[in-house]
Amino acid sequence: MSNKNNSTLNQNEENDIIVGRNSVVELLKSGRKINRLVIAEGSRDKTIQKIISLARENQIIFENVPRARLDKIHSNHQGVIAYTTPIEYSTLEEITAPSALSPKPLILLLDELEDPHNFGAILRTADAVGVNGVLIPKRRSVSLNATVAKTSAGAIEYVKVAQINNVAQTIKNLREKNFWIVGSDAEGTINYNQVDYKKPIVLVIGSEGKGLRRLTKENCDELVKIPMIGKINSLNASVAAAILMYEIFNQRNK
Amino acid sequence: MSNKNNSTLNQNEENDIIVGRNSVVELLKSGRKINRLVIAEGSRDKTIQKIISLARENQIIFENVPRARLDKIHSNHQGVIAYTTPIEYSTLEEITAPSALSPKPLILLLDELEDPHNFGAILRTADAVGVNGVLIPKRRSVSLNATVAKTSAGAIEYVKVAQINNVAQTIKNLREKNFWIVGSDAEGTINYNQVDYKKPIVLVIGSEGKGLRRLTKENCDELVKIPMIGKINSLNASVAAAILMYEIFNQRNK
Repeated sequence: MSNKNNSTLNQNEENDIIVGRNSVVELLKSGRKINRLVIAEGSRDKTIQKIISLARENQIIFENVPRARLDKIHSNHQGVIAYTTPIEYSTLEEITAPSALSPKPLILLLDELEDPHNFGAILRTADAVGVNGVLIPKRRSVSLNATVAKTSAGAIEYVKVAQINNVAQTIKNLREKNFWIVGSDAEGTINYNQVDYKKPIVLVIGSEGKGLRRLTKENCDELVKIPMIGKINSLNASVAAAILMYEIFNQRNK
Repeated sequence: MSNKNNSTLNQNEENDIIVGRNSVVELLKSGRKINRLVIAEGSRDKTIQKIISLARENQIIFENVPRARLDKIHSNHQGVIAYTTPIEYSTLEEITAPSALSPKPLILLLDELEDPHNFGAILRTADAVGVNGVLIPKRRSVSLNATVAKTSAGAIEYVKVAQINNVAQTIKNLREKNFWIVGSDAEGTINYNQVDYKKPIVLVIGSEGKGLRRLTKENCDELVKIPMIGKINSLNASVAAAILMYEIFNQRNK
């Protein structure tokens, strides 16, 4: 099933495409299988040199091709494109297994997030604060694609992501496992920094346009809001998620 | 100079183009001059209906055109495009005039930020916490364009943005006006939440890839870092800016 001998540069259905220097560095470090590594000819960039030496260390064959050929595959490749086996989703069970959880677990649930840039930025923050895993609904939600990989700056290799069938049911199951369910919502009744997060938490973030769905809201133990004193009444979804994740992180690391 | 009678839908040099429902709503509310307002035929969306009634209130003529014509102008128009006079930059003097400053001023300085999505998200957070203004270098920096307007969700209409010639010199001038200069940097010596922000602050954020430049760093009174315990060693620039802005906001609003 290897595509090493595939002579076209088109994306193969069995491959994920990872573009951009930092993303490819993290891919190489992660040990995930790389089927093909293509580098623009004549690049003297330091990170590209690092990619070449990491590839040699790991005995991954790379090809130098004219930059114009990379341009045809992706508009923003920064001189390097890798083909890899698709990121595998984790399962909810893997994320919530007692052995996998930190002493004060934090799980993120993204309720119908749509924008891959936001998802990538959220994974980056999730890595930074050490969340145990991220849950996304199977339907009507962003998935792990090349844009997410790139904007995650490599975090996609390290943060566990699981797809779930039913948000409300998953929340109920996690509550039974002693998680406290905190939803972020403009209509929240309490400021986000007035809640005690020193217990197992599921943090629920809504979609960009519509926030949390009614049924999701009803299943939260607490609805928190981020105070705003300006003219616009919402924040970017990845920004809101980060403000909440860092509040939780800070409370637990005082 | 009006373009009302311009029969083509191409962007005119004297016009800014604002796309997307929420951005156009904020544009209409802001009172900025609208030269042309184009709406996709047959749209039943609630926000489009709101745009139509706001346009009528403000006696702005709008045109219904086939959706395909909007597609040709912008890929993500959501059924509405407005042509407006370009956003005017503020001046540094307008932002720092004593009458314009809040009792505990906060000014944001973006040192060579490049990504318009990040800039838009930062303006949105800047509006939410009430910053007095945002400074960007004239050269090698993102400018106020249509993508910034859209990702700012309308905040671009309310947050003052000034272009500056020289970052180091501007910092020195602001220090003389009793501002405390705080730079965000991965090599910061102190965690961001261990600093007292209850004084006039200039918060300096670096570029996406490279962080703060050496000369900028040297001119900061304090270099703060955001703690990270994951595998990736940086956050998205708009996320980092938001975490810092909300720490400052929270300290001042306890």
